[in-house]
Amino acid sequence: MLSDLVTLADVQRAASILAGVARVTPVMTSRQLDDAAQATVFLKCENFQRIGAFKFRGAYHAIATLQPEAQGRPVVTLSSGNHAQGVALASYLLGREAHIVMHQPINPLKYQATVGYHATIHETADREAAEHRLRDLLAKLRGVYIHAFNDPRVIAGQGTAMLEFLQAVPDLDVVLAPVGGGGLLSGTGIAAHGLKPSLQVYACEPLGALDAMHSVRENRIVPMPDPRTIAEGLRTSIGDITLPILRRHLAGFFTVAEDEIVAAMRFVFERLKLVIEPSSAVALAPLLRREAALMGKRVGVIVTGGNVDLSAYFDRLRGTA
Amino acid sequence: MLSDLVTLADVQRAASILAGVARVTPVMTSRQLDDAAQATVFLKCENFQRIGAFKFRGAYHAIATLQPEAQGRPVVTLSSGNHAQGVALASYLLGREAHIVMHQPINPLKYQATVGYHATIHETADREAAEHRLRDLLAKLRGVYIHAFNDPRVIAGQGTAMLEFLQAVPDLDVVLAPVGGGGLLSGTGIAAHGLKPSLQVYACEPLGALDAMHSVRENRIVPMPDPRTIAEGLRTSIGDITLPILRRHLAGFFTVAEDEIVAAMRFVFERLKLVIEPSSAVALAPLLRREAALMGKRVGVIVTGGNVDLSAYFDRLRGTA
Repeated sequence: MLSDLVTLADVQRAASILAGVARVTPVMTSRQLDDAAQATVFLKCENFQRIGAFKFRGAYHAIATLQPEAQGRPVVTLSSGNHAQGVALASYLLGREAHIVMHQPINPLKYQATVGYHATIHETADREAAEHRLRDLLAKLRGVYIHAFNDPRVIAGQGTAMLEFLQAVPDLDVVLAPVGGGGLLSGTGIAAHGLKPSLQVYACEPLGALDAMHSVRENRIVPMPDPRTIAEGLRTSIGDITLPILRRHLAGFFTVAEDEIVAAMRFVFERLKLVIEPSSAVALAPLLRREAALMGKRVGVIVTGGNVDLSAYFDRLRGTA
Repeated sequence: MLSDLVTLADVQRAASILAGVARVTPVMTSRQLDDAAQATVFLKCENFQRIGAFKFRGAYHAIATLQPEAQGRPVVTLSSGNHAQGVALASYLLGREAHIVMHQPINPLKYQATVGYHATIHETADREAAEHRLRDLLAKLRGVYIHAFNDPRVIAGQGTAMLEFLQAVPDLDVVLAPVGGGGLLSGTGIAAHGLKPSLQVYACEPLGALDAMHSVRENRIVPMPDPRTIAEGLRTSIGDITLPILRRHLAGFFTVAEDEIVAAMRFVFERLKLVIEPSSAVALAPLLRREAALMGKRVGVIVTGGNVDLSAYFDRLRGTA
């Protein structure tokens, strides 16, 4: 079965490869969050992961386990987000050349971080040009493509966060994570159900980018031509590898409005003192509106990352200082 | 001796009173911070403390150990900052009425948080009016005054953070903390040297509010009539109880410019994903400029709090969402 393409054993092997390289991120709790949610909430803080997001896990695992025929060949990917940084840092650590194709609009912060990890960036005008450039680079450089989520090695890597989560908090009832391409949630479902079949895994998705929910319900990839959400990491569609895994492991979806994303993000900054990106807030919003399926439960949330552009805030602050 | 007014035993007793009430805050580390500082840095994250700042420790301990003759009498203080919230929450938990005098300008966020902890707030136009109102309330209500720092019980409470810090990281060489009224640094010095006499304790102070440095050097309270710093918690002068304790325990001062405060705060938000207030950034700035006395050392920093007004950022974000 396609949904068996990645197994618990794969995730466990990935964990041994990531040991000492990826950070075992802390699990945080908050009295204020528990009160607000009327639940016992545990946050797996991947915003403290290297590169500031869980994406390092999958990228490193994928590159570290490339087949011998890929020996010495550069790594190539298409991403303007956290995957770009993950591939860049992992390649650097593994002594491999990395080429990242980005298309406009490019977040200057993520651009700089990726450059900081010594990757070569190829800027293009739009998605179509970027895909063209990607094929070009793969051919010209004999590059190895590392997809952001539709790759069993990436999925196994992302699943290691859930292994650590259950090690720290074995008696979770429910796990929440946001869904973009579905790599994290695929790995999470495989790890969660491999260790604890009764665990309920929910996907959280912005109302302005509901492609994953429709795809899982219709059992086909339903693209969303014009996704509109500030959770930029969740604008992508899922893939043919993540789709069957999500169908098998998800208990359901929670959909979230844009104002709920901002409110949840603000709650976490102001009350919990954690910097999180909008995508992470998507998985907290259902708790803050006290979804019936979550109240009274022991709920784990994968806080996916903290790479958010705060320049406007700090430029203003510098002006007043 | 006045510098013996508070002892390690007092801090240890305070710790037993705070056990199960105050949070044992986590100690965090960061590869990026270590690289930037060329030191091994440990952050004692009091931004995760109840009320979002260390001030809860001292306020709770002071109110919990009031003498029998104070039985049933309301608690009164003058503070527009974290001490106000500390007194408010501690009073609520201990079943005591709290009256807080604040004067303009009042930070609406801190005002609301204090109201949220069920305290009665008395607003006045300026510092002079506030002091008048304070005396008035103390007389009329037979109130008990809880000073923000110049109080042995408050100092003993603040010192408990350092006890926890050394329990988590016994082999620190240096400890850094910001200095406002000197309550935290007094407790920190007493706890640090009670357990480890060789530990070097440094005060970090904004160039725009150098009253503590001058006071310690001249051995008299040198007020600063018009302190100018965004680190609002550090604008206050030290007191006659904290002065001799600081003189005894401090290895020295690091002074910090305003642009360094903003840069350090930004570094912590963007790289470490922690929300900290400007006062906390004051103690990180010397590390980021690689002070000679810190390089290569095992340096502990007390991250004092995370109560910073982010409304401008989130109002803007809501507008784009």
